[in-house]
Amino acid sequence: MGLDPDPAVIPAGLGEGISAVRRHTLALVEATAPYAAAYKPNLAFFERLGPAGWELLIEVVTAASRHALVIADAKRGDIGHTAVAYAEALYDRVGADACTVHGYLGEDSLRPFLDRPDRFAFIVCRTSNPGAADFQDLPVGEGGEPLYLRLAKLARGWNTLGTVGLVAGATWPGEIARIRSVAPELPLLLPGVGAQQGDLEQAARAARGEDGQGLFLVSVSRAISQASTGDDFAEAATDAARGFHTRLTREASAVSNSR
Amino acid sequence: MGLDPDPAVIPAGLGEGISAVRRHTLALVEATAPYAAAYKPNLAFFERLGPAGWELLIEVVTAASRHALVIADAKRGDIGHTAVAYAEALYDRVGADACTVHGYLGEDSLRPFLDRPDRFAFIVCRTSNPGAADFQDLPVGEGGEPLYLRLAKLARGWNTLGTVGLVAGATWPGEIARIRSVAPELPLLLPGVGAQQGDLEQAARAARGEDGQGLFLVSVSRAISQASTGDDFAEAATDAARGFHTRLTREASAVSNSR
Repeated sequence: MGLDPDPAVIPAGLGEGISAVRRHTLALVEATAPYAAAYKPNLAFFERLGPAGWELLIEVVTAASRHALVIADAKRGDIGHTAVAYAEALYDRVGADACTVHGYLGEDSLRPFLDRPDRFAFIVCRTSNPGAADFQDLPVGEGGEPLYLRLAKLARGWNTLGTVGLVAGATWPGEIARIRSVAPELPLLLPGVGAQQGDLEQAARAARGEDGQGLFLVSVSRAISQASTGDDFAEAATDAARGFHTRLTREASAVSNSR
Repeated sequence: MGLDPDPAVIPAGLGEGISAVRRHTLALVEATAPYAAAYKPNLAFFERLGPAGWELLIEVVTAASRHALVIADAKRGDIGHTAVAYAEALYDRVGADACTVHGYLGEDSLRPFLDRPDRFAFIVCRTSNPGAADFQDLPVGEGGEPLYLRLAKLARGWNTLGTVGLVAGATWPGEIARIRSVAPELPLLLPGVGAQQGDLEQAARAARGEDGQGLFLVSVSRAISQASTGDDFAEAATDAARGFHTRLTREASAVSNSR
Protein backbone atom coordinates (compact mmCIF):
# COMPACT_ATOMS: atom_id res chain seq x y z
CA MET A 1 0.00 0.00 0.00
CA GLY A 2 1.67 3.17 -1.23
CA LEU A 3 1.10 6.29 0.86
CA ASP A 4 1.61 9.55 -1.09
CA PRO A 5 -0.31 12.15 0.95
CA ASP A 6 -1.45 14.99 -1.32
CA PRO A 7 -3.38 17.96 0.13
CA ALA A 8 -4.94 18.52 -3.31
CA VAL A 9 -6.98 15.29 -3.18
CA ILE A 10 -8.23 15.14 0.41
CA PRO A 11 -11.97 14.42 0.76
CA ALA A 12 -13.73 17.69 1.62
CA GLY A 13 -15.33 16.20 4.73
CA LEU A 14 -11.93 15.84 6.41
CA GLY A 15 -11.29 19.58 6.59
CA GLU A 16 -8.15 21.35 5.41
CA GLY A 17 -4.43 21.60 6.03
CA ILE A 18 -2.05 19.13 7.61
CA SER A 19 -4.67 17.85 10.07
CA ALA A 20 -6.86 16.77 7.15
CA VAL A 21 -3.88 15.08 5.47
CA ARG A 22 -3.20 13.32 8.77
CA ARG A 23 -6.76 12.03 9.15
CA HIS A 24 -6.83 10.88 5.53
CA THR A 25 -3.52 9.03 5.65
CA LEU A 26 -4.12 7.33 9.00
CA ALA A 27 -7.60 6.27 7.84
CA LEU A 28 -6.09 4.76 4.68
CA VAL A 29 -3.65 2.75 6.81
CA GLU A 30 -6.53 1.24 8.81
CA ALA A 31 -8.78 0.78 5.77
CA THR A 32 -6.19 -1.27 3.88
CA ALA A 33 -4.74 -3.19 6.83
CA PRO A 34 -6.59 -6.47 6.04
CA TYR A 35 -4.93 -6.67 2.62
CA ALA A 36 -1.58 -4.88 2.89
CA ALA A 37 1.58 -7.00 3.18
CA ALA A 38 3.54 -3.77 3.57
CA TYR A 39 3.08 0.00 3.59
CA LYS A 40 5.24 2.23 1.43
CA PRO A 41 5.18 5.88 2.51
CA ASN A 42 6.74 8.06 -0.21
CA LEU A 43 8.98 10.57 1.56
CA ALA A 44 8.67 13.28 -1.11
CA PHE A 45 5.04 13.88 -0.19
CA PHE A 46 5.81 14.18 3.51
CA GLU A 47 8.82 16.45 2.93
CA ARG A 48 6.69 18.76 0.79
CA LEU A 49 4.59 19.42 3.92
CA GLY A 50 7.59 20.84 5.81
CA PRO A 51 8.60 19.91 9.40
CA ALA A 52 5.01 18.90 10.23
CA GLY A 53 5.22 16.43 7.36
CA TRP A 54 8.25 14.78 8.95
CA GLU A 55 6.27 14.46 12.20
CA LEU A 56 3.36 12.99 10.27
CA LEU A 57 5.71 10.50 8.60
CA ILE A 58 6.81 9.15 11.98
CA GLU A 59 3.19 8.95 13.17
CA VAL A 60 2.15 7.10 9.99
CA VAL A 61 5.06 4.66 10.22
CA THR A 62 4.18 3.94 13.86
CA ALA A 63 0.53 3.29 12.95
CA ALA A 64 1.36 1.19 9.90
CA SER A 65 3.92 -0.87 11.82
CA ARG A 66 1.11 -2.29 13.97
CA HIS A 67 -0.25 -4.06 10.88
CA ALA A 68 2.62 -4.80 8.49
CA LEU A 69 6.15 -4.01 7.37
CA VAL A 70 6.97 -0.43 6.43
CA ILE A 71 9.17 0.51 3.47
CA ALA A 72 10.39 4.12 3.47
CA ASP A 73 10.37 5.02 -0.23
CA ALA A 74 13.21 7.51 0.09
CA LYS A 75 15.56 6.64 -2.80
CA ARG A 76 18.58 7.91 -0.91
CA GLY A 77 22.13 7.47 -2.17
CA ASP A 78 25.34 8.99 -0.82
CA ILE A 79 28.75 8.00 0.45
CA GLY A 80 30.68 7.58 3.70
CA HIS A 81 29.37 9.18 6.86
CA THR A 82 26.45 10.69 4.90
CA ALA A 83 25.18 7.23 3.97
CA VAL A 84 25.45 6.23 7.64
CA ALA A 85 23.37 9.28 8.62
CA TYR A 86 20.68 8.48 6.03
CA ALA A 87 20.42 4.89 7.24
CA GLU A 88 20.08 6.05 10.84
CA ALA A 89 17.46 8.63 9.81
CA LEU A 90 15.28 6.09 7.98
CA TYR A 91 15.80 3.01 10.16
CA ASP A 92 16.17 4.53 13.61
CA ARG A 93 14.50 7.96 13.56
CA VAL A 94 11.62 7.21 11.19
CA GLY A 95 11.53 3.57 12.29
CA ALA A 96 11.09 1.96 8.87
CA ASP A 97 11.74 -1.75 8.40
CA ALA A 98 13.08 -1.18 4.90
CA CYS A 99 13.82 1.57 2.41
CA THR A 100 14.59 2.25 -1.23
CA VAL A 101 18.08 3.41 -2.27
CA HIS A 102 20.06 4.44 -5.36
CA GLY A 103 22.97 2.23 -6.40
CA TYR A 104 24.90 4.60 -8.74
CA LEU A 105 27.52 5.22 -6.03
CA GLY A 106 28.35 1.52 -5.67
CA GLU A 107 28.71 -1.06 -2.94
CA ASP A 108 30.38 0.92 -0.16
CA SER A 109 27.68 3.62 -0.44
CA LEU A 110 25.02 0.95 0.23
CA ARG A 111 26.76 -0.93 3.05
CA PRO A 112 25.23 1.19 5.88
CA PHE A 113 21.82 0.02 4.60
CA LEU A 114 22.71 -3.58 3.73
CA ASP A 115 24.76 -4.37 6.84
CA ARG A 116 21.79 -4.03 9.19
CA PRO A 117 20.59 -7.64 9.59
CA ASP A 118 17.23 -6.47 10.97
CA ARG A 119 16.50 -4.14 8.05
CA PHE A 120 16.13 -4.39 4.26
CA ALA A 121 16.96 -2.19 1.27
CA PHE A 122 15.48 -2.25 -2.24
CA ILE A 123 17.95 -0.87 -4.80
CA VAL A 124 16.40 1.03 -7.73
CA CYS A 125 17.06 -1.20 -10.76
CA ARG A 126 14.67 -0.58 -13.69
CA THR A 127 12.08 2.19 -13.56
CA SER A 128 8.86 2.60 -15.53
CA ASN A 129 9.41 6.10 -16.98
CA PRO A 130 10.60 7.02 -20.51
CA GLY A 131 13.94 8.33 -19.15
CA ALA A 132 14.77 4.85 -17.84
CA ALA A 133 16.29 4.26 -21.28
CA ASP A 134 18.79 7.14 -20.88
CA PHE A 135 21.05 5.12 -18.57
CA GLN A 136 19.41 1.92 -17.30
CA ASP A 137 19.20 0.30 -20.74
CA LEU A 138 22.70 1.27 -21.91
CA PRO A 139 24.78 -1.77 -22.92
CA VAL A 140 27.78 -2.08 -20.60
CA GLY A 141 31.02 -4.00 -20.70
CA GLU A 142 32.06 -6.68 -23.15
CA GLY A 143 28.83 -8.66 -23.03
CA GLY A 144 26.77 -5.58 -23.74
CA GLU A 145 24.14 -6.41 -21.12
CA PRO A 146 21.97 -3.45 -20.08
CA LEU A 147 23.13 -1.46 -17.06
CA TYR A 148 20.08 -2.46 -14.98
CA LEU A 149 20.95 -6.16 -15.38
CA ARG A 150 24.54 -5.47 -14.31
CA LEU A 151 23.13 -3.74 -11.25
CA ALA A 152 20.88 -6.73 -10.51
CA LYS A 153 23.85 -9.13 -10.74
CA LEU A 154 26.07 -7.03 -8.48
CA ALA A 155 23.23 -6.56 -5.99
CA ARG A 156 22.83 -10.33 -5.82
CA GLY A 157 26.48 -10.58 -4.81
CA TRP A 158 25.98 -8.03 -2.04
CA ASN A 159 23.15 -10.08 -0.47
CA THR A 160 25.25 -11.90 2.13
CA LEU A 161 22.81 -11.03 4.96
CA GLY A 162 19.57 -11.42 3.01
CA THR A 163 18.98 -7.67 3.18
CA VAL A 164 18.93 -6.82 -0.54
CA GLY A 165 16.01 -6.38 -2.92
CA LEU A 166 15.43 -4.56 -6.21
CA VAL A 167 12.89 -2.01 -7.48
CA ALA A 168 11.48 -2.68 -10.94
CA GLY A 169 8.54 -0.85 -12.53
CA ALA A 170 5.49 -3.09 -12.97
CA THR A 171 4.86 -1.58 -16.41
CA TRP A 172 7.71 -3.60 -17.97
CA PRO A 173 7.17 -7.35 -17.36
CA GLY A 174 9.86 -8.25 -19.89
CA GLU A 175 12.48 -6.38 -17.89
CA ILE A 176 11.16 -7.90 -14.65
CA ALA A 177 11.61 -11.37 -16.16
CA ARG A 178 15.22 -10.61 -17.13
CA ILE A 179 15.96 -9.26 -13.64
CA ARG A 180 14.40 -12.34 -12.09
CA SER A 181 16.53 -14.63 -14.27
CA VAL A 182 19.82 -13.13 -13.02
CA ALA A 183 18.72 -12.56 -9.40
CA PRO A 184 16.38 -15.46 -8.60
CA GLU A 185 16.34 -15.05 -4.83
CA LEU A 186 16.12 -11.27 -4.47
CA PRO A 187 12.73 -9.88 -3.40
CA LEU A 188 11.38 -7.40 -5.95
CA LEU A 189 9.37 -4.25 -5.23
CA LEU A 190 7.09 -3.52 -8.19
CA PRO A 191 5.53 -0.04 -8.23
CA GLY A 192 3.46 1.24 -11.13
CA VAL A 193 0.27 -0.82 -10.87
CA GLY A 194 -2.91 1.26 -11.01
CA ALA A 195 -2.43 4.91 -11.98
CA GLN A 196 0.67 4.03 -14.01
CA GLN A 197 -1.25 1.26 -15.83
CA GLY A 198 1.09 -1.61 -15.04
CA ASP A 199 -0.56 -4.99 -15.65
CA LEU A 200 -0.78 -6.71 -12.28
CA GLU A 201 -0.95 -10.30 -13.51
CA GLN A 202 1.83 -9.94 -16.09
CA ALA A 203 4.13 -8.24 -13.58
CA ALA A 204 3.42 -10.86 -10.92
CA ARG A 205 4.03 -13.74 -13.31
CA ALA A 206 7.36 -12.28 -14.42
CA ALA A 207 8.41 -11.66 -10.81
CA ARG A 208 7.65 -15.26 -9.78
CA GLY A 209 10.14 -16.43 -12.36
CA GLU A 210 10.52 -19.75 -14.11
CA ASP A 211 10.18 -21.84 -10.96
CA GLY A 212 7.31 -19.79 -9.56
CA GLN A 213 9.22 -19.21 -6.30
CA GLY A 214 10.29 -15.58 -6.77
CA LEU A 215 9.36 -13.21 -3.96
CA PHE A 216 7.84 -9.83 -4.73
CA LEU A 217 5.69 -7.00 -3.46
CA VAL A 218 3.31 -5.10 -5.73
CA SER A 219 2.91 -1.45 -4.76
CA VAL A 220 -0.34 0.39 -5.49
CA SER A 221 -0.87 3.99 -4.41
CA ARG A 222 -3.44 6.25 -6.07
CA ALA A 223 -5.64 3.42 -7.43
CA ILE A 224 -6.42 2.66 -3.77
CA SER A 225 -5.91 5.96 -1.92
CA GLN A 226 -7.91 7.90 -4.51
CA ALA A 227 -10.40 5.14 -5.36
CA SER A 228 -12.85 7.68 -4.03
CA THR A 229 -12.14 11.29 -3.09
CA GLY A 230 -15.53 11.58 -1.43
CA ASP A 231 -16.52 10.83 2.14
CA ASP A 232 -16.62 7.11 1.33
CA PHE A 233 -12.85 7.11 0.61
CA ALA A 234 -12.05 4.55 3.33
CA GLU A 235 -14.63 2.01 2.17
CA ALA A 236 -13.54 2.56 -1.42
CA ALA A 237 -9.90 2.02 -0.41
CA THR A 238 -10.78 -1.22 1.38
CA ASP A 239 -12.71 -2.42 -1.69
CA ALA A 240 -9.87 -1.48 -4.06
CA ALA A 241 -7.25 -3.14 -1.85
CA ARG A 242 -9.38 -6.27 -1.63
CA GLY A 243 -9.68 -6.26 -5.42
CA PHE A 244 -5.91 -6.22 -5.94
CA HIS A 245 -5.47 -8.84 -3.22
CA THR A 246 -8.02 -11.12 -4.87
CA ARG A 247 -6.36 -10.75 -8.26
CA LEU A 248 -2.94 -11.58 -6.82
CA THR A 249 -4.32 -14.60 -4.97
CA ARG A 250 -6.04 -15.82 -8.12
CA GLU A 251 -2.87 -15.36 -10.14
CA ALA A 252 -0.91 -17.35 -7.55
CA SER A 253 -3.48 -20.19 -7.70
CA ALA A 254 -3.28 -20.27 -11.48
CA VAL A 255 0.51 -20.56 -11.30
CA SER A 256 0.25 -23.27 -8.65
CA ASN A 257 -2.40 -25.24 -10.60
CA SER A 258 -0.38 -25.15 -13.79
CA ARG A 259 2.42 -27.16 -12.13
CA MET B 1 30.86 25.68 2.99
CA GLY B 2 29.46 22.25 3.73
CA LEU B 3 27.15 21.98 6.74
CA ASP B 4 26.92 18.44 8.20
CA PRO B 5 25.68 19.00 11.77
CA ASP B 6 26.83 16.15 13.99
CA PRO B 7 25.85 16.07 17.70
CA ALA B 8 28.97 13.97 18.39
CA VAL B 9 31.38 16.83 17.61
CA ILE B 10 29.71 19.85 19.17
CA PRO B 11 32.04 21.99 21.35
CA ALA B 12 31.25 21.27 24.99
CA GLY B 13 30.67 24.93 25.77
CA LEU B 14 27.57 25.01 23.56
CA GLY B 15 25.59 22.58 25.72
CA GLU B 16 23.82 19.45 24.50
CA GLY B 17 21.02 18.29 22.25
CA ILE B 18 19.44 19.97 19.25
CA SER B 19 19.84 23.46 20.74
CA ALA B 20 23.62 22.97 20.85
CA VAL B 21 23.60 21.69 17.26
CA ARG B 22 21.58 24.77 16.30
CA ARG B 23 23.99 27.20 17.96
CA HIS B 24 26.99 25.45 16.41
CA THR B 25 25.60 25.36 12.88
CA LEU B 26 24.31 28.95 12.87
CA ALA B 27 27.65 30.16 14.29
CA LEU B 28 29.50 28.33 11.50
CA VAL B 29 27.31 30.07 8.92
CA GLU B 30 28.27 33.49 10.29
CA ALA B 31 31.94 32.57 10.85
CA THR B 32 32.45 31.52 7.24
CA ALA B 33 30.27 34.17 5.58
CA PRO B 34 33.22 36.35 4.42
CA TYR B 35 34.65 33.47 2.38
CA ALA B 36 31.71 31.26 1.35
CA ALA B 37 30.40 31.53 -2.23
CA ALA B 38 27.69 29.07 -1.27
CA TYR B 39 26.49 26.94 1.66
CA LYS B 40 25.80 23.25 1.20
CA PRO B 41 23.66 21.78 4.00
CA ASN B 42 23.74 17.97 3.81
CA LEU B 43 20.19 16.78 4.40
CA ALA B 44 21.16 13.40 5.86
CA PHE B 45 22.52 15.07 9.00
CA PHE B 46 19.37 17.15 9.50
CA GLU B 47 17.05 14.18 8.87
CA ARG B 48 18.94 12.12 11.44
CA LEU B 49 17.81 14.68 14.04
CA GLY B 50 14.12 13.95 13.37
CA PRO B 51 11.39 16.58 12.84
CA ALA B 52 13.41 19.16 14.81
CA GLY B 53 16.21 18.63 12.32
CA TRP B 54 13.91 19.55 9.45
CA GLU B 55 12.98 22.75 11.32
CA LEU B 56 16.67 23.46 11.89
CA LEU B 57 17.36 22.93 8.18
CA ILE B 58 14.87 25.66 7.25
CA GLU B 59 16.35 28.00 9.87
CA VAL B 60 19.89 27.35 8.62
CA VAL B 61 18.90 27.87 4.97
CA THR B 62 17.20 31.15 5.90
CA ALA B 63 20.31 32.36 7.77
CA ALA B 64 22.73 31.22 5.07
CA SER B 65 20.63 32.83 2.31
CA ARG B 66 21.42 36.24 3.75
CA HIS B 67 25.06 35.73 2.77
CA ALA B 68 25.27 33.43 -0.23
CA LEU B 69 23.56 30.83 -2.38
CA VAL B 70 22.32 27.66 -0.69
CA ILE B 71 22.66 24.18 -2.23
CA ALA B 72 20.50 21.51 -0.59
CA ASP B 73 22.72 18.41 -0.79
CA ALA B 74 19.81 16.00 -0.96
CA LYS B 75 20.70 13.63 -3.84
CA ARG B 76 17.04 12.98 -4.62
CA GLY B 77 15.93 11.02 -7.65
CA ASP B 78 12.44 9.76 -8.52
CA ILE B 79 9.84 9.92 -11.29
CA GLY B 80 6.60 11.68 -12.17
CA HIS B 81 4.61 13.36 -9.46
CA THR B 82 7.16 12.22 -6.85
CA ALA B 83 9.91 14.21 -8.56
CA VAL B 84 7.61 17.24 -8.60
CA ALA B 85 7.01 16.85 -4.85
CA TYR B 86 10.77 16.59 -4.13
CA ALA B 87 11.48 19.74 -6.16
CA GLU B 88 8.76 21.63 -4.31
CA ALA B 89 10.06 20.35 -0.96
CA LEU B 90 13.64 21.51 -1.61
CA TYR B 91 13.03 24.69 -3.60
CA ASP B 92 9.81 26.00 -2.03
CA ARG B 93 9.55 24.49 1.47
CA VAL B 94 13.23 24.44 2.41
CA GLY B 95 13.93 27.47 0.23
CA ALA B 96 17.18 26.28 -1.34
CA ASP B 97 18.56 27.97 -4.46
CA ALA B 98 19.95 24.70 -5.77
CA CYS B 99 20.13 21.01 -4.96
CA THR B 100 21.92 17.78 -5.84
CA VAL B 101 20.05 15.01 -7.68
CA HIS B 102 20.57 11.48 -9.03
CA GLY B 103 20.36 10.99 -12.80
CA TYR B 104 19.88 7.19 -13.02
CA LEU B 105 16.16 7.64 -13.80
CA GLY B 106 16.85 9.85 -16.83
CA GLU B 107 15.75 13.17 -18.24
CA ASP B 108 12.04 13.21 -17.40
CA SER B 109 12.83 12.42 -13.75
CA LEU B 110 15.03 15.55 -13.61
CA ARG B 111 12.76 17.97 -15.47
CA PRO B 112 10.91 19.21 -12.32
CA PHE B 113 14.34 20.36 -11.05
CA LEU B 114 15.79 21.62 -14.35
CA ASP B 115 12.70 23.45 -15.61
CA ARG B 116 12.76 25.99 -12.80
CA PRO B 117 14.63 28.96 -14.35
CA ASP B 118 15.27 30.50 -10.92
CA ARG B 119 16.82 27.36 -9.47
CA PHE B 120 19.76 25.03 -10.23
CA ALA B 121 20.46 21.30 -9.96
CA PHE B 122 23.81 19.50 -9.77
CA ILE B 123 23.53 15.93 -11.10
CA VAL B 124 25.78 13.35 -9.38
CA CYS B 125 28.31 12.38 -12.05
CA ARG B 126 31.57 10.91 -10.62
CA THR B 127 31.97 10.31 -6.91
CA SER B 128 35.14 9.95 -4.84
CA ASN B 129 34.45 6.59 -3.14
CA PRO B 130 35.79 3.15 -4.12
CA GLY B 131 32.32 1.99 -5.22
CA ALA B 132 32.25 4.68 -7.90
CA ALA B 133 33.94 2.09 -10.11
CA ASP B 134 31.01 -0.37 -9.78
CA PHE B 135 28.81 1.58 -12.21
CA GLN B 136 30.18 5.06 -12.99
CA ASP B 137 33.31 3.76 -14.72
CA LEU B 138 31.62 1.00 -16.75
CA PRO B 139 32.21 1.36 -20.49
CA VAL B 140 28.89 1.99 -22.25
CA GLY B 141 27.71 1.85 -25.84
CA GLU B 142 29.81 1.39 -28.95
CA GLY B 143 32.48 3.92 -28.06
CA GLY B 144 33.02 2.36 -24.67
CA GLU B 145 33.15 5.69 -22.84
CA PRO B 146 32.62 5.43 -19.07
CA LEU B 147 29.06 5.85 -17.84
CA TYR B 148 29.88 9.07 -15.95
CA LEU B 149 31.04 10.74 -19.19
CA ARG B 150 27.86 9.66 -20.96
CA LEU B 151 25.93 11.24 -18.10
CA ALA B 152 27.95 14.47 -18.45
CA LYS B 153 27.24 14.63 -22.18
CA LEU B 154 23.50 14.03 -21.77
CA ALA B 155 23.35 16.56 -18.93
CA ARG B 156 24.92 19.17 -21.20
CA GLY B 157 22.11 18.58 -23.68
CA TRP B 158 19.51 19.12 -20.94
CA ASN B 159 20.93 22.55 -20.05
CA THR B 160 18.57 24.64 -22.16
CA LEU B 161 17.77 26.99 -19.27
CA GLY B 162 21.25 27.16 -17.72
CA THR B 163 20.04 25.20 -14.70
CA VAL B 164 22.31 22.14 -14.91
CA GLY B 165 25.57 21.37 -13.12
CA LEU B 166 27.48 18.20 -12.21
CA VAL B 167 28.91 16.76 -8.99
CA ALA B 168 32.45 15.33 -9.26
CA GLY B 169 34.61 14.25 -6.33
CA ALA B 170 37.64 16.51 -5.86
CA THR B 171 39.82 13.47 -5.16
CA TRP B 172 39.94 12.52 -8.87
CA PRO B 173 41.30 15.45 -10.93
CA GLY B 174 41.78 13.21 -13.97
CA GLU B 175 38.06 12.43 -14.06
CA ILE B 176 37.21 16.11 -13.47
CA ALA B 177 39.32 17.02 -16.51
CA ARG B 178 37.51 14.48 -18.68
CA ILE B 179 34.12 15.76 -17.49
CA ARG B 180 35.20 19.34 -18.21
CA SER B 181 36.29 18.41 -21.71
CA VAL B 182 32.83 17.08 -22.66
CA ALA B 183 30.77 19.64 -20.70
CA PRO B 184 32.77 22.88 -20.93
CA GLU B 185 30.03 25.26 -19.75
CA LEU B 186 28.45 23.25 -16.91
CA PRO B 187 29.25 24.46 -13.38
CA LEU B 188 30.87 21.70 -11.31
CA LEU B 189 30.38 21.04 -7.61
CA LEU B 190 33.53 19.45 -6.18
CA PRO B 191 33.17 17.89 -2.73
CA GLY B 192 35.93 15.92 -1.07
CA VAL B 193 38.50 18.60 -0.23
CA GLY B 194 39.74 18.47 3.37
CA ALA B 195 38.72 15.39 5.34
CA GLN B 196 38.56 13.31 2.15
CA GLN B 197 42.04 14.51 1.14
CA GLY B 198 41.19 15.89 -2.27
CA ASP B 199 43.94 18.18 -3.59
CA LEU B 200 42.39 21.64 -3.86
CA GLU B 201 44.75 23.06 -6.47
CA GLN B 202 44.69 19.99 -8.74
CA ALA B 203 40.91 19.76 -8.60
CA ALA B 204 40.51 23.48 -9.31
CA ARG B 205 42.92 23.37 -12.24
CA ALA B 206 41.08 20.44 -13.79
CA ALA B 207 37.70 22.14 -13.29
CA ARG B 208 38.87 25.35 -15.00
CA GLY B 209 39.57 23.32 -18.12
CA GLU B 210 41.86 24.01 -21.05
CA ASP B 211 40.68 27.59 -21.54
CA GLY B 212 40.67 28.42 -17.83
CA GLN B 213 37.04 29.56 -18.02
CA GLY B 214 35.29 26.58 -16.38
CA LEU B 215 32.99 27.43 -13.47
CA PHE B 216 33.13 25.40 -10.27
CA LEU B 217 32.47 25.36 -6.54
CA VAL B 218 34.77 23.57 -4.11
CA SER B 219 32.92 22.15 -1.10
CA VAL B 220 34.69 21.79 2.23
CA SER B 221 32.88 20.54 5.32
CA ARG B 222 34.73 19.01 8.28
CA ALA B 223 38.10 20.67 7.56
CA ILE B 224 36.33 23.94 8.39
CA SER B 225 33.47 23.00 10.73
CA GLN B 226 35.74 20.80 12.86
CA ALA B 227 38.91 22.88 12.50
CA SER B 228 38.51 23.20 16.25
CA THR B 229 36.03 21.35 18.45
CA GLY B 230 36.84 23.64 21.36
CA ASP B 231 35.26 26.93 22.32
CA ASP B 232 37.33 28.68 19.63
CA PHE B 233 35.54 26.72 16.89
CA ALA B 234 34.15 29.85 15.20
CA GLU B 235 37.52 31.62 14.94
CA ALA B 236 39.11 28.38 13.76
CA ALA B 237 36.40 27.99 11.11
CA THR B 238 36.97 31.55 9.88
CA ASP B 239 40.72 30.92 9.70
CA ALA B 240 40.26 27.62 7.86
CA ALA B 241 37.78 29.13 5.40
CA ARG B 242 40.15 32.03 4.77
CA GLY B 243 42.94 29.54 4.13
CA PHE B 244 40.97 27.68 1.45
CA HIS B 245 39.84 30.99 -0.05
CA THR B 246 43.44 32.24 -0.25
CA ARG B 247 44.62 29.05 -1.90
CA LEU B 248 41.85 29.22 -4.50
CA THR B 249 42.60 32.89 -5.21
CA ARG B 250 46.30 32.13 -5.55
CA GLU B 251 45.59 29.22 -7.89
CA ALA B 252 43.38 31.48 -10.03
CA SER B 253 46.16 34.11 -10.23
CA ALA B 254 48.69 31.47 -11.27
CA VAL B 255 46.36 30.30 -14.05
CA SER B 256 45.74 33.88 -15.14
CA ASN B 257 49.47 34.78 -15.08
CA SER B 258 50.40 31.75 -17.13
CA ARG B 259 48.37 33.06 -20.09
